[in-house]
Amino acid sequence: MTIEKKGSVRVAILGLGTVGGGVYKTIQNNRETIRKRTGYEVEVTAILVRDLEKERLLDIDLALLTQNPEDVLNGELDVLIEVMGGLEPANTVISQALRSGRHVITANKELMAKHGAELLAIAEEHGAHLLFEASVAGGIPVIRMLQGYLTANRVKGISGILNGTCNYILTEMARTGREYAEILEDAKALGYAEADPTSDVEGYDAAYKLAILTNLAYDAKIDLRQIEREGITALQAADLELADRHGYAIKLIGSARESQGGLQLSVRPRLLPKSHPLANINDVFNAVTIQADVVGELTFSGRGAGEFPTASAVIEDLTALLTGESAIRRPVWKRIVNEGVYEPNTQPGAWYVSYCCRPEAAQQIEVEWLSAMLTQRAFVASREAVQLADGAVRQSWLVGGVGEQEVRVSLQWLYKTGAEATTAVLLPVEGEIEPGVEWRQPVSSLVEETDSVRHVL
Amino acid sequence: MTIEKKGSVRVAILGLGTVGGGVYKTIQNNRETIRKRTGYEVEVTAILVRDLEKERLLDIDLALLTQNPEDVLNGELDVLIEVMGGLEPANTVISQALRSGRHVITANKELMAKHGAELLAIAEEHGAHLLFEASVAGGIPVIRMLQGYLTANRVKGISGILNGTCNYILTEMARTGREYAEILEDAKALGYAEADPTSDVEGYDAAYKLAILTNLAYDAKIDLRQIEREGITALQAADLELADRHGYAIKLIGSARESQGGLQLSVRPRLLPKSHPLANINDVFNAVTIQADVVGELTFSGRGAGEFPTASAVIEDLTALLTGESAIRRPVWKRIVNEGVYEPNTQPGAWYVSYCCRPEAAQQIEVEWLSAMLTQRAFVASREAVQLADGAVRQSWLVGGVGEQEVRVSLQWLYKTGAEATTAVLLPVEGEIEPGVEWRQPVSSLVEETDSVRHVL
Repeated sequence: MTIEKKGSVRVAILGLGTVGGGVYKTIQNNRETIRKRTGYEVEVTAILVRDLEKERLLDIDLALLTQNPEDVLNGELDVLIEVMGGLEPANTVISQALRSGRHVITANKELMAKHGAELLAIAEEHGAHLLFEASVAGGIPVIRMLQGYLTANRVKGISGILNGTCNYILTEMARTGREYAEILEDAKALGYAEADPTSDVEGYDAAYKLAILTNLAYDAKIDLRQIEREGITALQAADLELADRHGYAIKLIGSARESQGGLQLSVRPRLLPKSHPLANINDVFNAVTIQADVVGELTFSGRGAGEFPTASAVIEDLTALLTGESAIRRPVWKRIVNEGVYEPNTQPGAWYVSYCCRPEAAQQIEVEWLSAMLTQRAFVASREAVQLADGAVRQSWLVGGVGEQEVRVSLQWLYKTGAEATTAVLLPVEGEIEPGVEWRQPVSSLVEETDSVRHVL
Repeated sequence: MTIEKKGSVRVAILGLGTVGGGVYKTIQNNRETIRKRTGYEVEVTAILVRDLEKERLLDIDLALLTQNPEDVLNGELDVLIEVMGGLEPANTVISQALRSGRHVITANKELMAKHGAELLAIAEEHGAHLLFEASVAGGIPVIRMLQGYLTANRVKGISGILNGTCNYILTEMARTGREYAEILEDAKALGYAEADPTSDVEGYDAAYKLAILTNLAYDAKIDLRQIEREGITALQAADLELADRHGYAIKLIGSARESQGGLQLSVRPRLLPKSHPLANINDVFNAVTIQADVVGELTFSGRGAGEFPTASAVIEDLTALLTGESAIRRPVWKRIVNEGVYEPNTQPGAWYVSYCCRPEAAQQIEVEWLSAMLTQRAFVASREAVQLADGAVRQSWLVGGVGEQEVRVSLQWLYKTGAEATTAVLLPVEGEIEPGVEWRQPVSSLVEETDSVRHVL
């Protein structure tokens, strides 16, 4: 790489929030290790902040701070580290830096998901590098794996827990039985969720990361509208409990799979069997499982967010730049898989369905809904129910052999006939399921079966 | 790298067993992917086998096979792939290849653990590369991670499930309650264990791999005698059951930790809390957890052995060689941590102890042993017991606040006083444990407590 002064690299940091502070501290604390491994002394020459007056807990030379991006771009600069987030001014400053031949390291998933292809093209044109390990899964080197390791393998599928906020909330809902809204407040207090949590809890953040991973794994440019997206806000604590009784954990999973129609991309809560490598990834941890044709299944896990894990990814990108490792394989985002919006998958699969109702209506609703499902040639693998604090019950089913669309229709029909059924949840189930023994019986015998369910409640 | 013929790389394979066959097939099947990603056509020019007459299931040109290493070394050769295992002739052939400037890729953990430093020095002297990703944890790119990724981070500790045979046996013992010897026979029938399983089940194989990982993580040359080593042959099925009741899984763990006296290295069965990232790695899967100062904890898991996972690691080393990525960071095995043999750790820790006895002797043995332990200022965190098929009981304890040596002494003493106690097991316990409430009481009150244990049995 081109760095003017031998043995010394001049770095500017855009943003001095949690990650920016972590990057600055890591450069100071691990200066000696970086020098020994790369031969370079790292010198921070400027830090772009939003507010010069803000009090900093960091021990930092205030003369480095500026509010003006021009100061950064016109100053002494070899590598720009962008950890401020958001599309602007990040996009403009990064583009300008790359155009002037400076290398850029970014943690900005939204920017890379939306404008990564253009920025990488600018970098290539001007002989600069654009590295973005920190944009996905914090300190887990999954970008490096896809770019530099799995080259002889062909990737068959990716699934990952890509958002630490959601994973923390789901873990706590399962552990404590408390509801989403309450845990979200805890998460905010702990710094695990932002004041406006929409991007995290509605799955946008995970969708950005999935787009970046899919870009690399399939050499494909992804339109974010091709990603089916559903957040975690509709889940009830009872769903976590019911899933556990069925033998599953509920996780927000970003998933890319090859199918006949192209790539199937989604971010949505899924039931994972407890033996699934992602089922035991808890709290703010992230994990990514890659299926590849030769190696089989590889899983990487670690802290997906926070000051130091993300700073680690940034600093490792910096050392890769300094040692020349980043020169290896530029991402090729040329293949366009599918243009336009996401189209629903109509393949038969396995589904978790739950709904609330009054106990006295449970039997009637159950029989009517099951009749509808069994008419669709669905089978039932298992059922569980819990009584809620207000006296209502939440019933749940694992059904298989039927497409999502049919299940969704049956739920709409359920709303109409059993007026007390509310807040239905429909989630995909990973892995094979089999008909439960009792459900091989004809529908007419179900009435008696349902009595036993009511006793359990 | 130096490859004579542009656009084509000539490869010889030493060994055509499970892994060798996988390498050959992968080169054929993924030829197009490799060509696209590296620009090279891979040409297999020779395969060294032990027995030319052996029947091969593989679709292979028999003219490629030879029993004479000289044929390989004097033939057309850019890269030598060694997947035959054992020290000789592998060591000699690899040394000769490196001396003639040929690059070598090896899956040989014993060779790398015992002679890696010399071979890497020969490679360096002759401008050749020696790559060995396949020597540890099959297709999991942990070598690549330590060599090429964690450069700004300082590694603080490594622990891993490094032997698939042992992990399969322990998983099956826990799942079925069947004993070691029986499961070992299953493992042989399934091809998961060799006819002579000593290297696997006694922990030698895992110790080789631990030495290689430690070399890289700490830039240290490791003498295998510095690794405390204990296999899985003494474990009873009841121990897996008891550990489960205490809230733990038992796994054979290779572990390297920095301590005041230098590195503490061991391969031994350990109790891991069920929330530990390695506790849920089952069957023939391997996993490695790396603790580093900036990133925190990273875990990599995948298939640790078998035809294709190991072939994947070999082929990815080959593509790294062809794209120049292997030039990045050569391992530096210069620091010598400790010369001489392993010295036992005397630090207080947490321990699992179990022993068999006749039910009528249980109370007396328990009181005497506990008195000895409590005199040593140990505390008891929990106790569990199971009745065995022959009417004996197996009692187990989690004790803390005491060094391993003291527990070991108490067990020897136990043999003398309670003559019926046999086959005691002592294992380290990961994570913090706390005194169980009832054990804060003075020793004199324990006699009555033990009554309740006998009722439970």
